[in-house]
Amino acid sequence: MIRRSGNYDDILHEAVAHNGVLYLAGIVAEDLSLDMAGQTADALRQIDALLAAHGSSRERLLTALIFITDMRLKPEMNRVWKEWLPAAHLPTRATIGVNDLDEGVLIEIVATAALP
Amino acid sequence: MIRRSGNYDDILHEAVAHNGVLYLAGIVAEDLSLDMAGQTADALRQIDALLAAHGSSRERLLTALIFITDMRLKPEMNRVWKEWLPAAHLPTRATIGVNDLDEGVLIEIVATAALP
Amino acid sequence: MIRRSGNYDDILHEAVAHNGVLYLAGIVAEDLSLDMAGQTADALRQIDALLAAHGSSRERLLTALIFITDMRLKPEMNRVWKEWLPAAHLPTRATIGVNDLDEGVLIEIVATAALP
Repeated sequence: MIRRSGNYDDILHEAVAHNGVLYLAGIVAEDLSLDMAGQTADALRQIDALLAAHGSSRERLLTALIFITDMRLKPEMNRVWKEWLPAAHLPTRATIGVNDLDEGVLIEIVATAALP
Repeated sequence: MIRRSGNYDDILHEAVAHNGVLYLAGIVAEDLSLDMAGQTADALRQIDALLAAHGSSRERLLTALIFITDMRLKPEMNRVWKEWLPAAHLPTRATIGVNDLDEGVLIEIVATAALP
Repeated sequence: MIRRSGNYDDILHEAVAHNGVLYLAGIVAEDLSLDMAGQTADALRQIDALLAAHGSSRERLLTALIFITDMRLKPEMNRVWKEWLPAAHLPTRATIGVNDLDEGVLIEIVATAALP
């Protein structure tokens, strides 16, 4: 069975659940006036909400694919990331520097998590 | 059990099935003379064929990771995407602007789908 | 059940196992003075070790998402890749040209594999 939720502009669902895995769409900050630390916190807050809505949580993250537009800001992102995540429950991760995530977007996070 | 099909140049398989999930390789248009709308339609046509060959379909897509080389062409891509996909069955998606997908390639789509 | 291993700097786990699938973090060469062929071989050697540590192997790879910073070096990468992988067991793959993988990094590989 496939469970979908959070239709965004008829382009995507924010979350799709299948076979015990929850797949999240690429999440960006809602407030794009924020700096890297702020945008990271904003995106992670949304991820928390999506995980909770499906009975999962940050402790059950499996993977994170993180795209950022300025690799020099990776330390700022990491600081927020490390505060957010308990060390015992860290997912796999890759951080990729790309040239465009749409205007004003500094970070986009694509995550998957285990369902209970 | 792992089922693989579509050996491409001894570099990759176009589709790998495992545990109820079908993973597709990064799909690009066959006709690279096309514009963004054309390349998107071309890639989606190939995805349809790969899904059908494994008993899946666009209605069962779980995720799409879309790489494009010019974010200004995202609206053109979205137009074709939205025509292709029924709103109730949209997968998660992220669209990432990158600087090189090989000569002439405007879009590359990495998708997964549920198997029946 | 989720099994995690290889905590790296309290930022990520190098491997996370769940539901029969092993997810690996983005793997880069340890020796960044190497050229593309050398960095690719270095990363693949690490992937071999991570797979073996979890009872999987290169023959059970499902997907590979490969990020490189210079698409002109793709043939060098492919040469090492093809020597490494038996044709019958190739995963799906996408190779994406991006502008920054951190200083000196020419290639980063994000792979998944089936567990026995």
